[in-house]
Amino acid sequence: MRNVNRQVVLKSRPKGYPELSDFDLVESPIGDPDPGEALVRARYLSLDPYMRGRMNDARSYVPPLAIGEVIVGGIVGEVVRTNTDAFAVGDVVEGRLGWQEYGLARPDAARKVPFPDIPESTALGILGMPGLTAYFGFLEIGRPVSGDTVVVSAASGAVGAVVGQIAKLAGCRVVGIAGSDEKIAYIRGELGFDEGVNHRVTEDMGAALDGACPDGIDVYFDNVGGPITDAVLPRLALRARVVICGQISQYNLEQPPMAPSALRHLLINQARMEGFIVTSFQAKFEEGRARLAQWVRDGKLKYREDVTDGIENAPEQFIELMRGHNFGKKLIRLSRGE
Amino acid sequence: MRNVNRQVVLKSRPKGYPELSDFDLVESPIGDPDPGEALVRARYLSLDPYMRGRMNDARSYVPPLAIGEVIVGGIVGEVVRTNTDAFAVGDVVEGRLGWQEYGLARPDAARKVPFPDIPESTALGILGMPGLTAYFGFLEIGRPVSGDTVVVSAASGAVGAVVGQIAKLAGCRVVGIAGSDEKIAYIRGELGFDEGVNHRVTEDMGAALDGACPDGIDVYFDNVGGPITDAVLPRLALRARVVICGQISQYNLEQPPMAPSALRHLLINQARMEGFIVTSFQAKFEEGRARLAQWVRDGKLKYREDVTDGIENAPEQFIELMRGHNFGKKLIRLSRGE
Repeated sequence: MRNVNRQVVLKSRPKGYPELSDFDLVESPIGDPDPGEALVRARYLSLDPYMRGRMNDARSYVPPLAIGEVIVGGIVGEVVRTNTDAFAVGDVVEGRLGWQEYGLARPDAARKVPFPDIPESTALGILGMPGLTAYFGFLEIGRPVSGDTVVVSAASGAVGAVVGQIAKLAGCRVVGIAGSDEKIAYIRGELGFDEGVNHRVTEDMGAALDGACPDGIDVYFDNVGGPITDAVLPRLALRARVVICGQISQYNLEQPPMAPSALRHLLINQARMEGFIVTSFQAKFEEGRARLAQWVRDGKLKYREDVTDGIENAPEQFIELMRGHNFGKKLIRLSRGE
Repeated sequence: MRNVNRQVVLKSRPKGYPELSDFDLVESPIGDPDPGEALVRARYLSLDPYMRGRMNDARSYVPPLAIGEVIVGGIVGEVVRTNTDAFAVGDVVEGRLGWQEYGLARPDAARKVPFPDIPESTALGILGMPGLTAYFGFLEIGRPVSGDTVVVSAASGAVGAVVGQIAKLAGCRVVGIAGSDEKIAYIRGELGFDEGVNHRVTEDMGAALDGACPDGIDVYFDNVGGPITDAVLPRLALRARVVICGQISQYNLEQPPMAPSALRHLLINQARMEGFIVTSFQAKFEEGRARLAQWVRDGKLKYREDVTDGIENAPEQFIELMRGHNFGKKLIRLSRGE
């Protein structure tokens, strides 16, 4: 292999929606694994909404990216050189090595992809961070009860699609909100959601939700925030649970818009609203992955990937993701002929 | 006694803040206890913020008052006639008999005031609904941990003053927000709060909270909503808990003002916000009352009452309460010379 590692780095902090000029594709030498490390050639890069937050210089649950730093993110790749007993050449691993062709993995920051019978790309999607986010967020924060009416925003996305299907497995009635008729047809036809609302063509979200949820909303799994969430919250049922998983509608706003306060709705319904970060469930990831994998094998959980080839397309595809133009889990596939 | 029962009834639904003309003082015959009932002469009427919600024709956790109906509310009084073994003449009881001089109590809707060594008026305050609201809301929803920074709004009120004192007993650092320098002096000097912020003279609540809570806010017990709460929520600490107990700043608004969304703060801090109604803890009221009473006896919980004589003053005093002009638990004392 040529000793060239292509990397996507943060060139400038986006103002509002990211632009191509906020990213740079740079070349650097491929690293050599120190003792305890392995060199991994990436086969898939994961593109996820949370990355937008890292590009801001703002307080959050992790420090921001520095200018010039490789964009954070999970990858799946193959070990090509090793200096540790933990990984052998040829192992397929998953780790947070960022948007680059080659990365150095340590055993505490990468792990072998555990299910050889399931496509490896799922380690970034339904069996990876997004799937675990759906699993733990919905079950442990949402606490569904059979018969509950569950509303999921970004319902065809990497997290939302899993939430809705687990909700069906849990005996709930599931209403998905998504941004195209094609997505609505998918969540209803393929994934078994009971109802779908296309927020891009629905003039009165409140009325649409009233129609879809005549008894109110017991669990709202929120990936988006903003006007969709503002329409959901006045329709909570008694003892409703609101899971704050993502707020993608807000990530690209310089100044968040004002909204009607939701506190009264929480008060009169004795409802709970809770934010979470999936890593807080890390001790149970193995349990979660095993259960998700079994559901995938049994055909009870379906997934859809939105794959683009070439690391040079990562910035453009990330921008598409920010605009909701993805359809399923967004991935970049790398396949250099070496 | 004359066979006249004076009652305060709802004459019209308030638009915004209630006015005297929204209430009527009417006379009716004193009722005769049916089998299973006792006739109670009220000695104290309770005035509480939640009553404002009952005056609207809006969906809430209980049905609204009808026009012409006696205003709901707890009272403490003395049994003057009885037609049940549950109550004897002379018993001092507490029940939800509303703003009237005489009411008929059934054993399932009234109970003997349990602590003869503590003034009976406390059955409407620190040992009654407001005290239990503070006790269960703070301990069970707020889940304080020793060392937490706790912020309480309406800190000198019937609920807030108890929350702050229990927080001190739980080993927390307590910051109270109230609306006068006198109230701030009281919560700091008498009740032992660590800090106080007078929101009526503080131009920048955010800066004041930053100064009072340099490590962020672990528990926010909210009695008010509105701009005070908007200033608190961006300052939540990791895994903060927000207890939505009341929203008095919103009760008299025809159209709630827009506010910056709090959802991002909940997300990045993995924080929880939860509304509750004290009656959901009914099964544990006896435990709560006993513990509060012991703290009162031990001098660990102090309380302050804001007492006005005469049922005819109830509407005016309720309006004062709505405007935050009370100082302590608002009561009307009835003492006709009969």
